[in-house]
Amino acid sequence: MSGIYFGIDVGGTSVKIGCFDGAGELVERREIPTRKGENGKYLFDDIAMAVLMQTVALGLKPSAIAGVGLGVPGPVLSDGFVETCVNLGVYDCYPAKEISERLGGVTVKLANDANVAALGEAMAGGAKGAASMAMITLGTGVGGGIVVDGKICVGAHGAAGEIGHLTVNPAETQRCNCGGRGCLEQYASATGVVRTARLLLAQSDAPGMLRGKLNLTAKDVFDAAKLGDELAGKAVDIMCDYLALAMSHVSLVSDPEVFIIGGGVSAAGEFLLEKLRTRYERLSPIMKRKAQVRAALLGNDAGIYGACRLVL
Amino acid sequence: MSGIYFGIDVGGTSVKIGCFDGAGELVERREIPTRKGENGKYLFDDIAMAVLMQTVALGLKPSAIAGVGLGVPGPVLSDGFVETCVNLGVYDCYPAKEISERLGGVTVKLANDANVAALGEAMAGGAKGAASMAMITLGTGVGGGIVVDGKICVGAHGAAGEIGHLTVNPAETQRCNCGGRGCLEQYASATGVVRTARLLLAQSDAPGMLRGKLNLTAKDVFDAAKLGDELAGKAVDIMCDYLALAMSHVSLVSDPEVFIIGGGVSAAGEFLLEKLRTRYERLSPIMKRKAQVRAALLGNDAGIYGACRLVL
Repeated sequence: MSGIYFGIDVGGTSVKIGCFDGAGELVERREIPTRKGENGKYLFDDIAMAVLMQTVALGLKPSAIAGVGLGVPGPVLSDGFVETCVNLGVYDCYPAKEISERLGGVTVKLANDANVAALGEAMAGGAKGAASMAMITLGTGVGGGIVVDGKICVGAHGAAGEIGHLTVNPAETQRCNCGGRGCLEQYASATGVVRTARLLLAQSDAPGMLRGKLNLTAKDVFDAAKLGDELAGKAVDIMCDYLALAMSHVSLVSDPEVFIIGGGVSAAGEFLLEKLRTRYERLSPIMKRKAQVRAALLGNDAGIYGACRLVL
Repeated sequence: MSGIYFGIDVGGTSVKIGCFDGAGELVERREIPTRKGENGKYLFDDIAMAVLMQTVALGLKPSAIAGVGLGVPGPVLSDGFVETCVNLGVYDCYPAKEISERLGGVTVKLANDANVAALGEAMAGGAKGAASMAMITLGTGVGGGIVVDGKICVGAHGAAGEIGHLTVNPAETQRCNCGGRGCLEQYASATGVVRTARLLLAQSDAPGMLRGKLNLTAKDVFDAAKLGDELAGKAVDIMCDYLALAMSHVSLVSDPEVFIIGGGVSAAGEFLLEKLRTRYERLSPIMKRKAQVRAALLGNDAGIYGACRLVL
């Protein structure tokens, strides 16, 4: 065996650790809890220890570790500096350097988790074979990542691919969590779809499947829309209008070959993708040929696949 | 002398030819008329001949030509294929290959003219030293180019950096030349500024400097705005609102270090840039640090500088 590679996705609750061979095939996958506090002291120790134990468990020596890639939930500057990862309690440090030191100088590379997930889908998932792509993750918030010529586009301030905060509705009066107004996230996240449905419910007395429902979820809205509920359909249409507009913006800036739609809300499947494609195709007539719109394939493993590709 | 490089900017009226040394310094600059027709036959001959003549005039042998870079007015696919350059009468060919054959196999590289101008400003102009930048050219239309990690971002369909056609006002009823509605170009081009001023003039009877003016130009509007004319100021504000919105979109996709504003309308100088900065800084609060907004420095020479950098 020529060497093994680790792809590590550091989340606020758990750290997913994938061990890959030189061909990028997943050999083994583990998960450890995220210990926060003391600016990553425990976290870095835990990660280095888990990597070493997994290597030994495979019957290999630590010298077999050819590289470690890490995805973290926060902006990463191009030199690997992390100013703040709120969810990890990590501030003003170079996490890759910390972990490399604990592994005897092994090559460790770092990137933002949304960007790493995009790289995973680009290299081994829904956009496999595409040189350029954009990933949009529709979860509690809306995340994004841009891959250009097979590499993550980080940006000068670590903000490239922050698709969720594109201003898609300058007329919005309510504020987004980021402090802005009219961000994509306010309409296309799970929270956003529910918010839109609630606003529509408040605007009329018309009966419908969602009326009187407690703890309304994005899934409820999509399920009702699929069954033909008018108000739910309208909430989904509003989401798709804004998301397609944001996709047209991305296309005219980085012009990806493929859009990958992931995250919990993307469980709505072809029902959602077809609505998106129709709207996206109508926009930006200057582009004769447009990007394909596909579903994410790797789910929660996108991060470990992408992190591994940082060093593979 | 180790070798010379040519940067060539092919326009609809003339071809600008810059000869550079190995350090990227401009040695000499010439211009020849653009002969159209027969799918570039004359044009390719003329360019190759001019390159050879300029080389010989410098007392060098043709073998001293180390590389030729070309910018053309139309989309260029990543393999160098040009489907259509309307202004040149060139269709379905590989211009770089054509010119290389006429120069005995010299390396010739090709890119879109707006992208090449962006690369010129990135390497030798207003964004010199920045790894990533975006250029916005405010002329008859609005052009754009994106540079990521020192390289032009071409995109999967040659449409990356088509900033002029970002939909900034989905509520627009009039169509853009591209067939879309609410494109940036409808507000931020020279034509767009005049169009906005005319719309405002038609909406009221209030007196002002622009009323009754024949052949209104963008310069007239900016000059009046600088002198405090209310209606002209409003037209400029509308332009800046939409342009800043488009810049915030670019920032959240490719996150450039610097925006370079060029083209005829940018002659309005700091008056325009300051209005842009104020608006752009207010948008996208998720970005704590934002791109600088600077004026283009190379003017009409940006193309030859950038084209040269394709091969230097």
